[in-house]
Amino acid sequence: MRVDLNSDLGESFGAYTLGMDEAVLGVITSANIACGMHAGDPQVIAATVKMAAQKGVGIGAHPGYPDLQGFGRRNMALSPAEVKDYVIYQIGALEAFARAAGQKLQHVKPHGAMYNMAAKDYGLALAIAEGVKSVNPELILLALANSEMVKAARDVGLRVAQEVFADRTYNADGTLVARGTPGAMIHDKRVAIPRVVRMVTEGKVTAINGEDIAISADSICVHGDNPEAIHFVREIRDALQAAGVSIEPLQNFI
Amino acid sequence: MRVDLNSDLGESFGAYTLGMDEAVLGVITSANIACGMHAGDPQVIAATVKMAAQKGVGIGAHPGYPDLQGFGRRNMALSPAEVKDYVIYQIGALEAFARAAGQKLQHVKPHGAMYNMAAKDYGLALAIAEGVKSVNPELILLALANSEMVKAARDVGLRVAQEVFADRTYNADGTLVARGTPGAMIHDKRVAIPRVVRMVTEGKVTAINGEDIAISADSICVHGDNPEAIHFVREIRDALQAAGVSIEPLQNFI
Amino acid sequence: MRVDLNSDLGESFGAYTLGMDEAVLGVITSANIACGMHAGDPQVIAATVKMAAQKGVGIGAHPGYPDLQGFGRRNMALSPAEVKDYVIYQIGALEAFARAAGQKLQHVKPHGAMYNMAAKDYGLALAIAEGVKSVNPELILLALANSEMVKAARDVGLRVAQEVFADRTYNADGTLVARGTPGAMIHDKRVAIPRVVRMVTEGKVTAINGEDIAISADSICVHGDNPEAIHFVREIRDALQAAGVSIEPLQNFI
Amino acid sequence: MRVDLNSDLGESFGAYTLGMDEAVLGVITSANIACGMHAGDPQVIAATVKMAAQKGVGIGAHPGYPDLQGFGRRNMALSPAEVKDYVIYQIGALEAFARAAGQKLQHVKPHGAMYNMAAKDYGLALAIAEGVKSVNPELILLALANSEMVKAARDVGLRVAQEVFADRTYNADGTLVARGTPGAMIHDKRVAIPRVVRMVTEGKVTAINGEDIAISADSICVHGDNPEAIHFVREIRDALQAAGVSIEPLQNFI
Repeated sequence: MRVDLNSDLGESFGAYTLGMDEAVLGVITSANIACGMHAGDPQVIAATVKMAAQKGVGIGAHPGYPDLQGFGRRNMALSPAEVKDYVIYQIGALEAFARAAGQKLQHVKPHGAMYNMAAKDYGLALAIAEGVKSVNPELILLALANSEMVKAARDVGLRVAQEVFADRTYNADGTLVARGTPGAMIHDKRVAIPRVVRMVTEGKVTAINGEDIAISADSICVHGDNPEAIHFVREIRDALQAAGVSIEPLQNFI
Repeated sequence: MRVDLNSDLGESFGAYTLGMDEAVLGVITSANIACGMHAGDPQVIAATVKMAAQKGVGIGAHPGYPDLQGFGRRNMALSPAEVKDYVIYQIGALEAFARAAGQKLQHVKPHGAMYNMAAKDYGLALAIAEGVKSVNPELILLALANSEMVKAARDVGLRVAQEVFADRTYNADGTLVARGTPGAMIHDKRVAIPRVVRMVTEGKVTAINGEDIAISADSICVHGDNPEAIHFVREIRDALQAAGVSIEPLQNFI
Repeated sequence: MRVDLNSDLGESFGAYTLGMDEAVLGVITSANIACGMHAGDPQVIAATVKMAAQKGVGIGAHPGYPDLQGFGRRNMALSPAEVKDYVIYQIGALEAFARAAGQKLQHVKPHGAMYNMAAKDYGLALAIAEGVKSVNPELILLALANSEMVKAARDVGLRVAQEVFADRTYNADGTLVARGTPGAMIHDKRVAIPRVVRMVTEGKVTAINGEDIAISADSICVHGDNPEAIHFVREIRDALQAAGVSIEPLQNFI
Repeated sequence: MRVDLNSDLGESFGAYTLGMDEAVLGVITSANIACGMHAGDPQVIAATVKMAAQKGVGIGAHPGYPDLQGFGRRNMALSPAEVKDYVIYQIGALEAFARAAGQKLQHVKPHGAMYNMAAKDYGLALAIAEGVKSVNPELILLALANSEMVKAARDVGLRVAQEVFADRTYNADGTLVARGTPGAMIHDKRVAIPRVVRMVTEGKVTAINGEDIAISADSICVHGDNPEAIHFVREIRDALQAAGVSIEPLQNFI
């Protein structure tokens, strides 16, 4: 039993610092590094890629919408063709820094509004999957479990890793309960941690309607915004390891 | 005897169109494609790379300063480390589109203020050369003849192509006469064209002080802004071919 | 009987030129000048405001979404509070150039996706109207006839001018037939021009279902992208004047 | 005896937070608010202007170079005409938010590279002073004591407030000792605070060569980046008040 822990990194920009990147690199196995459109800049990317390489963390591109002020979180009506080109551009930029650091790019995980929109929209998901494949067919697409992105990745013949969340609940059809819906978030970590362990070890999670559903948990999304978040990652790690799960980068098992 | 003809392409942005890219691709052998910082955007890059590939024109990255409003022509006080990272970023983005189109990136030519500043500043030139090499040591650096960029490329072990201008004059030390200086520009094409042919066939040019100096003309910079410019390129081509010079992309002979 | 002719201007950016601004200023009475977010830059604004002032054309701010690459035409999920602040910012910038040129700002017309979204969304429309009023309650909001923007402007006590299109058709409820719907566009100017004259002189237009509906035509939107477009404006002017309509800037009669 | 304390505020951008704006507003009398080019965005400006108004702090525009990634600190080769237009644009944007909050704009202080370059370059300084005056001749220009900006403001008939620094030393000609030069910075606040008090009460400071020189200290530049910086401002305030100096916004005495 193996699982990956991924986190968004390299989100600083110019004089603006965001996230505790060095600390979180000590507890995760895959880093989604912002590519300069919704966050990050060439200097930040270079530094983040180097740090990730030093810690043996899998390097991923984290492409987002071209909306720095909105941090890539505001939905934009982009055509699939536009999204494909934004994805190619950003993967290329990130991969160049990986290469300059003597590393390989491991995966691609879309960010924010791009991730959320593509999870539900097969056309966008396909554009992303095709963009990834066109740059490098060896890349793994890290995608929301049970989403349209998983389907699209498979349809184009790309390896895909399914991502789960420790602090979110699921509908009976395997999709995430939308933020804002009552019960969407799990605030009690005594509930969250055993759920995650079960997703990884049994491939099951209890949906919001009480039903047990199947879920593939290849990677768990974690955060490194503050010391508490990093402490939470350590607790997840400890619980997974206690359950016999090996925590490894995606490239080891996808 | 072989020479390359290069031109800046892919300088459109969003709703803004610049240059007669399709026409100029019919008369040149290497394209310097803007990478999205001083001009160009992912959609423009994708379209330009495809067109260049169809015409068999060598594909190059044309990185510039992050100054879209100034078109990368305004000097900025960037550190060599910053310039290196801007170069890596932009080459990576361009190379991804080349790969997506089944092509190889042939060369890198810095744009505007980056080109002009690095021509005279060895520190910047070295940063650029190191940036290029770190992404892909097979790339050719297309640099102003006799400039610091030529030295830096050689010092890091990068292939370098020396670029000459049909409409500019040279100082006795091989550097360009600065724009604005009397005599800096050659407006009469009956003067310009034989000068270019001589640079290519004899490796010599008459400097502004009347002295003959040595110059390596691997590539001639031409423009595609308007029908007249494209007509001028055809005249240069005809004169070169009449003198027995073969016009080929850099990768064939550098 | 009076009507205004308005056009979008100042859409150039840096090295990129768009529109025949000088020519169109000779045939219109109100200019919607881009404010630097979806198009335009401080140098372009300064030049455009000066030209408009010289020609006695009413100066308007043309705020848009912060999406230069998409020219403000891509829908973005912005909150009303965000839109209000983007509007205040852009009006302020434009008004400063008007003041520097010894002029008053006459009106505000939202651009592209902001215009289209606010035409149908009262919450956005209200945010825009409140933003305009908070900067200067004397400003006129130039808004799509029969739209939510007209309602919102009235609700906050702002003067509003209703805009009509020569080349578009209307639904029976007074809204525009969506682009892409069969019959949405009028391509024959022998049809378009008399329709516009009737809208102005009778306050009526035949809707797509054949029914005559009431419409207030305070201003007609025209284009200045090419010589043909400018010729079309002249024909509209001639037809209006032949029908006894006086063509004047909004501030004269709203 | 009166003096103003000014600080740079509103430097956050989108998801990026910078500075302890609320805390520093409690100890200063004039706020230089970033205008969205080197830092700040419309939402940040709106919030900062409101907070400053609530605390009775004088509101100033803090225009900078269009270089968000470099935080406006990287020198750019802009023409005086370009700088003038950037200044007009940014003042206009800021003033609109001041007006929307029922406030008047008090002053303008250029930021970073614009401030530093204009302090030494009369042509740039004049462009800035003309830009300020063209928008609103009542505005005060807050400028480095003894700099070209002070001269330019006087030459165009603009009110000017001279700014001094607690932690910097001065040359015998009244200019700042360049950062990086030995002795340029004063790290010991037991030295810094009495120096500032003397600049305000006696109009004198000991230059780096030991000579006493005249200096006009209308405003003291302070920082609000961290709790220590804010504590230092309180100590300066206490020392000034103990010396009988009244701390008031510029508009009260310039």
